[in-house]
Amino acid sequence: MEGWSRGNNVNGSTMLTIDTQTELNVSTYTESIEKLIERLIKLPGIGRRSAERILAYILQAPLEDIKNLSEAITKVKESVRSCRICNNLSEQELCRICQDERRKKDIICIVENPSDVSAIEKAGSFAGVYHVLMGSISPLEGKGPSDLKIEGLLHRIKENNIQEIIIATDADTEGETTALYLAKLIKPTGVKLMRLGIGIPMGSNLEYADSSTLSKALESRRQV
Amino acid sequence: MEGWSRGNNVNGSTMLTIDTQTELNVSTYTESIEKLIERLIKLPGIGRRSAERILAYILQAPLEDIKNLSEAITKVKESVRSCRICNNLSEQELCRICQDERRKKDIICIVENPSDVSAIEKAGSFAGVYHVLMGSISPLEGKGPSDLKIEGLLHRIKENNIQEIIIATDADTEGETTALYLAKLIKPTGVKLMRLGIGIPMGSNLEYADSSTLSKALESRRQV
Repeated sequence: MEGWSRGNNVNGSTMLTIDTQTELNVSTYTESIEKLIERLIKLPGIGRRSAERILAYILQAPLEDIKNLSEAITKVKESVRSCRICNNLSEQELCRICQDERRKKDIICIVENPSDVSAIEKAGSFAGVYHVLMGSISPLEGKGPSDLKIEGLLHRIKENNIQEIIIATDADTEGETTALYLAKLIKPTGVKLMRLGIGIPMGSNLEYADSSTLSKALESRRQV
Repeated sequence: MEGWSRGNNVNGSTMLTIDTQTELNVSTYTESIEKLIERLIKLPGIGRRSAERILAYILQAPLEDIKNLSEAITKVKESVRSCRICNNLSEQELCRICQDERRKKDIICIVENPSDVSAIEKAGSFAGVYHVLMGSISPLEGKGPSDLKIEGLLHRIKENNIQEIIIATDADTEGETTALYLAKLIKPTGVKLMRLGIGIPMGSNLEYADSSTLSKALESRRQV
């Protein structure tokens, strides 16, 4: 019996072990399960453990639910594209926000990603429109201004009568760099240019705020 | 303009806010995206944040990859069933382990779930076969012995010439209860009955081990 060796004889029990780990790994799960786990692991935030838990869910859930999940995945991939005006996610040529007649088309909020649009929309206090850059300037990842959707933005500023632009990129190094770059680019057009307020988060304790947030909050102090 | 109200006038910028939060939520993402997020949230360990990150991955990954993922999900759901002998996951009538002629068919390792089979197989030191109970006795979840695949196990013990049974249920309350129940049931058959060794995990520090593990480790001490 090649590939087999006698294991430790503990408590009198006779065991056989297989020499090559790979040989065993093959027989652990079925082929289609291994393929699924392999695919699931590629998803962000999913490790092998989580993939196995998702597998268990898939196996015990009603067939209907799983078919719906699988269809929802392909549906999104096939039907979702970028809004022609603002690059936000959309199933038509224009996204819902650009289509909405009640939105103020002359106030543009510049964000890095579609998920930022979702976050600001949830806050429910902005009634202008957006411009999604699809990323930020990040020398570390080799992403420069040419990788961002800036051209369309400049075109919007020139062609439409934009009253105000709010730069709402992240408050990290990449976001700040992008904001600086955009500010330099937009300032000459004469449009009123704002940056999202940086300060103490609502409901948070002053003593737990980091010092850079605190100094930014002091800078952006306002009269009450 | 119903449903709209003037927001705070900060730094001289004029904003409009929408009164009803729900009205905005509807327009945050497209319909197919909301449907996908809703489906993804149902998966174990996936919250809205993770779902949005998975959505971003799906949108930027090659169409081919996403089709493969979607197909892998339905494939598993449609083709995977339980092994007729041991209840392990399988695509044929018998699982790979029960089919493998090199496995010692007279040593059965009893585990709670198919993922336990996978874990023991990865260790690579067991060459017997398995019996998957598909759960454990858990009064809190209203699961009793009748919810477990015990009948087939007793049949296997009676019909085949089983030399040894290793109970490898979890070392938690449910697993211990299940082990005790099985021991009572199997003891009368006269088969050699073992429980997986409980002790200090390999590579761990004695001082960090909890006291119940330590006392179990002392109980299961062996001569060197």
